[in-house]
Amino acid sequence: MVSRSVRLAVIPGDGIGPEVVAEGLKVLDAVSGELTFERTEYDLGAARWHRTGETLPDSVLEELRQQDVILLGAVGDPTVPSGTLERGLLLRARFELDHYVNLRPVKLFPGVATPLAGVTTDDIDMVVVREGTEGPYTGVGGVLRKGTRHEVATQESVNTAYGVERVIRYAFEVAASRPRKHLTLVHKDNVLTFAGDLYQRVLKRVAEEYPQVTTAYCHVDAATMFFVSQPRRFDVIVTDNLFGDIITDLGAAVAGGIGLAASGNVNPDRTAPSMFEPVHGSAPDIAGQRKADPTATILSVAMLLDHIGEGDAARRVERAVSDDLAERAAFGERSTSQIGDAIAKRVSG
Amino acid sequence: MVSRSVRLAVIPGDGIGPEVVAEGLKVLDAVSGELTFERTEYDLGAARWHRTGETLPDSVLEELRQQDVILLGAVGDPTVPSGTLERGLLLRARFELDHYVNLRPVKLFPGVATPLAGVTTDDIDMVVVREGTEGPYTGVGGVLRKGTRHEVATQESVNTAYGVERVIRYAFEVAASRPRKHLTLVHKDNVLTFAGDLYQRVLKRVAEEYPQVTTAYCHVDAATMFFVSQPRRFDVIVTDNLFGDIITDLGAAVAGGIGLAASGNVNPDRTAPSMFEPVHGSAPDIAGQRKADPTATILSVAMLLDHIGEGDAARRVERAVSDDLAERAAFGERSTSQIGDAIAKRVSG
Ligand SMILES: CC(C)[C@H](C(=O)O)[C@@H](O)C(=O)O
Ligand SMILES: CC(C)[C@H](C(=O)O)[C@@H](O)C(=O)O
Repeated sequence: MVSRSVRLAVIPGDGIGPEVVAEGLKVLDAVSGELTFERTEYDLGAARWHRTGETLPDSVLEELRQQDVILLGAVGDPTVPSGTLERGLLLRARFELDHYVNLRPVKLFPGVATPLAGVTTDDIDMVVVREGTEGPYTGVGGVLRKGTRHEVATQESVNTAYGVERVIRYAFEVAASRPRKHLTLVHKDNVLTFAGDLYQRVLKRVAEEYPQVTTAYCHVDAATMFFVSQPRRFDVIVTDNLFGDIITDLGAAVAGGIGLAASGNVNPDRTAPSMFEPVHGSAPDIAGQRKADPTATILSVAMLLDHIGEGDAARRVERAVSDDLAERAAFGERSTSQIGDAIAKRVSG
Repeated sequence: MVSRSVRLAVIPGDGIGPEVVAEGLKVLDAVSGELTFERTEYDLGAARWHRTGETLPDSVLEELRQQDVILLGAVGDPTVPSGTLERGLLLRARFELDHYVNLRPVKLFPGVATPLAGVTTDDIDMVVVREGTEGPYTGVGGVLRKGTRHEVATQESVNTAYGVERVIRYAFEVAASRPRKHLTLVHKDNVLTFAGDLYQRVLKRVAEEYPQVTTAYCHVDAATMFFVSQPRRFDVIVTDNLFGDIITDLGAAVAGGIGLAASGNVNPDRTAPSMFEPVHGSAPDIAGQRKADPTATILSVAMLLDHIGEGDAARRVERAVSDDLAERAAFGERSTSQIGDAIAKRVSG
């Protein structure tokens, strides 16, 4: 067996970020085997912003580009103006590293309580392919006459054939690889007619290359309804950046809570490192209390392993999480690190 | 007792629209008493568009302006390009008649099944005040190099201090009138920084005039999560046009389904007639099958009565609906008109 070394950038971030990342790394260590990770930690987040005013300096961005893959905890803090760290650090990384696929599985694991009545694990098993580099997230827009009665504030959603096609193509690949092979476009094409029409036309065109995949369309408002009333409708979803943000939080909620939702900010062309992170935020209200559930981060580590070609290791981590979840009802309250220890033990055992 | 005559425009629309509107009018007749409605029906929708290419002609719009109030069923049909009727008729009416408040109660009635486990009627009782005349619904945007690999499609969200202040002020009034007096702003201010910041600043300023109302902020993605995990968090919500569209469909789903969700497109300054409609769409798949639930339209009629100053009549309709819902489990399947008949009977009885 040849040993393999992977350069891993770690951005613990704010709030519960460092706590959950510690457990993610613990599990990564447990699974490694012939795989070694050369870790570099980056102290980005609220503390650095307070100290230096920096969110993601160019020099750090250049260092990140040299890494193979990135693990991020969470960013955002009430002491920092809303949006500063989110835009300056998280979104900047997604845009600069061209993470055009934001991959978010929505899956109900056995043993996990869902807030929905009468729903089983078969009903909730989908993958949301959220566009990650355009739409309303571009930051394009502005403000005129700020603070006056005549203020106008705009936000522009920018969508390109280039950007839409590559994410739709990726979604077809994901759909083609799954048993149901069903892809739903979620948008709001009856109101956002220009962007919606572009998504629809590209979907239709790319669909010709994937005759084995069935397709459907669903307005975003109706989709939120179906997430709670008929989640089984969905197998793979492709959607724009903002709609994807909204429905994946809802997806996390129906699949047992934000403590379990993993995600990958993926650059499928591998022109820059991809970045894996839990869907949840920095949760400053419970930071430092050893209460945060590290499961979402650990599942993000599994996605990371998959991305770097370590599918077997990824499967081992997923199985360990799944087994832990199945027995969770029997455990009492466990601290962040107790959950991490238990899963790490299963992985190495 | 003096008799009062009210000019009512009726737009049945497409799909199940005419079926549910018929029941709404039945209940209105049952409640009327000293109140008479001079009804004018407008044949707007898919059929007219196919016949004449018109959605909402200027001449009809001018006639609508002369009415006191409007009842609308639903618009949209698969034979018409997506968005044509929605934008040309529904949204045009909302914008031209300055329906800057889109009022959407989200309330779980006794006896109604919710998809959420362990939730009671006390947990779901909120009012969403959705902005109705700006945000991403303006239609501002365009497309460049359509159909080529270099296509760019934009959608602009336009938000003004004028527009934001009036809807926030209305939301504070609604909150002040309710027992909990709690108002939550739902937005995405960490990404849509220009628009979100405007909403935040206006909220803070107007809040000073309502010291009895407590306020909170929630990102739209987190809000969808809380709708299913902790709906009790919310009393009154104020939000932008698109976020309001999304969360009220979700709200309808958790409060027992889209068949029950009522709404008012309200012009609080009464410079033009307000328009009441069920939140659901035209549901072409079940049109003509006498299956559609007219309850949402009947509850919209109650909101209409309230708006024209007939609070007692509104309360009677609501109570009749509530009583009907409470006993629904005991009934077998009922047709659209059987439900309408039952509620109308309770209202007159
Ligand atoms: C923190 C925020 C900018 C981010 C987003 O909106 O994408 C988060 O909600 C997410 O879903 O990863
Ligand atoms: C039909 C559509 C244009 C409309 C909207 O998006 O406002 C509908 O979804 C609604 O909520 O009334």
